[in-house]
Amino acid sequence: MLKPSNPQGTRDFLPDVVQKRDYILDKIKNIFQHYGFTPIETPALENLSTLTGKYGEEGDKLLFKVLNSGDIASSINLQDVENKDNNSLINSLSKRGLRYDLTVPFARFVVQHQSELTFPFRRYQVQPVWRADRPQKGRFREFTQCDADAIGSDSLLNEADLVNIYAAVFDSLGLGKAILKINHRRLIEAVVEYLALPIEFAKFTIILDKLDKIGEEGVGNELNKLGVAEQKIQQLFELIRIKPFEENTLAKFEETLGKTESGALAISELNELLSFLDIDKLAFVKLDLSLARGLDYYTGCIFEAVVPDSGMGSISGGGRYANLTEVFGLKGMSGVGISFGIDRLYEILETQNLFPSESDDALSLLFCHFDAETRKHAYQLAQKCRANSVSTSVYPDLKKLNKQMEYANKMGAKHVIVVGQSEIETGQYGLKNMNTGESIKGDIRMIIQNLTDGKI
Amino acid sequence: MLKPSNPQGTRDFLPDVVQKRDYILDKIKNIFQHYGFTPIETPALENLSTLTGKYGEEGDKLLFKVLNSGDIASSINLQDVENKDNNSLINSLSKRGLRYDLTVPFARFVVQHQSELTFPFRRYQVQPVWRADRPQKGRFREFTQCDADAIGSDSLLNEADLVNIYAAVFDSLGLGKAILKINHRRLIEAVVEYLALPIEFAKFTIILDKLDKIGEEGVGNELNKLGVAEQKIQQLFELIRIKPFEENTLAKFEETLGKTESGALAISELNELLSFLDIDKLAFVKLDLSLARGLDYYTGCIFEAVVPDSGMGSISGGGRYANLTEVFGLKGMSGVGISFGIDRLYEILETQNLFPSESDDALSLLFCHFDAETRKHAYQLAQKCRANSVSTSVYPDLKKLNKQMEYANKMGAKHVIVVGQSEIETGQYGLKNMNTGESIKGDIRMIIQNLTDGKI
Repeated sequence: MLKPSNPQGTRDFLPDVVQKRDYILDKIKNIFQHYGFTPIETPALENLSTLTGKYGEEGDKLLFKVLNSGDIASSINLQDVENKDNNSLINSLSKRGLRYDLTVPFARFVVQHQSELTFPFRRYQVQPVWRADRPQKGRFREFTQCDADAIGSDSLLNEADLVNIYAAVFDSLGLGKAILKINHRRLIEAVVEYLALPIEFAKFTIILDKLDKIGEEGVGNELNKLGVAEQKIQQLFELIRIKPFEENTLAKFEETLGKTESGALAISELNELLSFLDIDKLAFVKLDLSLARGLDYYTGCIFEAVVPDSGMGSISGGGRYANLTEVFGLKGMSGVGISFGIDRLYEILETQNLFPSESDDALSLLFCHFDAETRKHAYQLAQKCRANSVSTSVYPDLKKLNKQMEYANKMGAKHVIVVGQSEIETGQYGLKNMNTGESIKGDIRMIIQNLTDGKI
Repeated sequence: MLKPSNPQGTRDFLPDVVQKRDYILDKIKNIFQHYGFTPIETPALENLSTLTGKYGEEGDKLLFKVLNSGDIASSINLQDVENKDNNSLINSLSKRGLRYDLTVPFARFVVQHQSELTFPFRRYQVQPVWRADRPQKGRFREFTQCDADAIGSDSLLNEADLVNIYAAVFDSLGLGKAILKINHRRLIEAVVEYLALPIEFAKFTIILDKLDKIGEEGVGNELNKLGVAEQKIQQLFELIRIKPFEENTLAKFEETLGKTESGALAISELNELLSFLDIDKLAFVKLDLSLARGLDYYTGCIFEAVVPDSGMGSISGGGRYANLTEVFGLKGMSGVGISFGIDRLYEILETQNLFPSESDDALSLLFCHFDAETRKHAYQLAQKCRANSVSTSVYPDLKKLNKQMEYANKMGAKHVIVVGQSEIETGQYGLKNMNTGESIKGDIRMIIQNLTDGKI
């Protein structure tokens, strides 16, 4: 007999974990709704033609491909096997894959359903995604993403909404230390242009992105190897060290980066974003010129949220994309979106003890009994409790009372009522709070009243 | 450019549909919780060794298999290709598949996590499943199941809870006409034994299961072909026509089926189930001797829910299984469970107009404006509304007012406030209810108060 197990890189979630994950997701979804975002869902299965080529060469390898049904043997080209042409073999064996993120399916969705949607369209989406990554600590092959995007409007008001959503999410989860880094892709372009760096923009962003990990010295060394003069490297770090949002203005960049076309546009957009924000209340927002975000579809403002000293990387990222739907045939549909990683949020809340101590979903009341007759009586009482929305169980089997109490403890039942012969005769029941030890006695209406009022 | 599309048999859900599906799921989950069920989740990806052989030969074919990563070519045995040995090829190309239902993963979960769980264990689970079925109307390759199971107790109290859950679900969804058919696998065995039918039990259940579709004549003909005498067929239908629950007793079976060992046990268990139920209130429960349920892992009570005249087959089914976990190495873990099909429930509620007319998730308030200044002012007001949990959007772009109002209409926004120069000066805003045409005027606190009190 094989020992049963779930596949490597996937997880089973026990009730305690599901309830905590739902706690996070409900908070975030609620806030999305307050900002006028509505939910959509797309299938886990997508045509490979939708997914392939959207995540770079590495991403294509990490797509989970689903085997076609039917006669596999006939679809295999022996020449491909001999030539070890894996790509051609995959093409003939599979035409569907598993969703790799929520962004590409969203772009497909917008193009496909454009006539049914009202633009500007704001959607949120909470669904699992799959990546055939090498499993390691904190990296999974199946994990949940939680995205919000506003598409069909290039107003910076959308970016302002997303910044305020970050504020609301951090506030509601108790993440007082969280920081939102903001940058603008055109401002990074401006750096390359203003300093006349002799390297490509794409390469520059990759090096810049490592600043958190390898520090100024490390970044300096890498740039130096690519022929950037020491003096320019120093100028670069001087720019990066400027913290313009703390002074509520981008004026310090105007005399430098603002002299380039890219810089002028980025500064104007960031100023417009600032104009919507009550920046005094948003001390958690930092303009960070070193923030690059790897994905090359970003064209404007970019975001990354971190919780300092949590030992976790970014817990959310996003940005403005001008052309995401173009690859599916729809031009001129600018949008901006963010994505929360639920696993990292979960880890931080768990480590920092930020989950509420008592889950609303825990069993509220367990009835114990002594025999078939008292169990039947308990069952009738339980039905009354349930009709009043009290989460209730009757211990199902005829077992000794200590066994039943042991079950109550293990289940974390908040309250217990033991029904014996005298309770049946008098109609008076004792309700015990298992956490405080407090107890009350009364008829079932009085007991239910106390439970629904949260008085015990 | 390829026209973008989702794979055949899968679906995109637009906001309206997601909200209605969530309406159903929230009602059901809520009731599960009232009965002490807690949520778990298992991964979409399962090892094929977990799934294969659990759903019959046909089921194995309908499993979606996921292609292994890495060097496909090297894992293909040319001999298999030549012999067209598809099973062997699948074995070498794939070791994981997509979840086919929630029951087998649950059995795997219980065995794998037995030391972390408290038994009797009650779980609910709402997740998508995948079947490589031929897509047709109302049958999808990716669909959501909604299951509740109680495992580790053979008490009929668990069955009673499930019957009461059916009552609560139908009541909460407004499905007053729904019927719950109940039978007991041992009672069908008793029929075969009592009538000394010259056919196998498994074959008999398959024929019996068709009664709804082909009628007494059809079933009679099929049995006749297998050598069952006309007289016995008539005796069978006499038994089936008895409606014992309506008369609140199984006494009518005691002199016939009850004479067999299987029958005596089934009658005793059904009587025990009845003893827990307030049967007068449960007129929707019908004992139906022709209910067989295909799945051969059922060993005790079986359930099937239908909505007569809805044009839909069963909307839920389930039953008692004595040995579901045995295949994963754990014996003596009896359980009972039910599964709701969300797609059929959705169709019935939609057809019978049973969804609430106004969704709680719809946009509550849209701010319109005339220029950058009034838009900025509107944005500050919107932040106050959102802080009071009013779902609010500000039209993001600077467009003509009629364009903005058109958007409000299309989005189904419940309320609109237009902010102009005079509103900025006076601090008095007009709130219009877009459904009733009613409007009020006041400062933002008064407006928010009216919105949160649901007064307009």
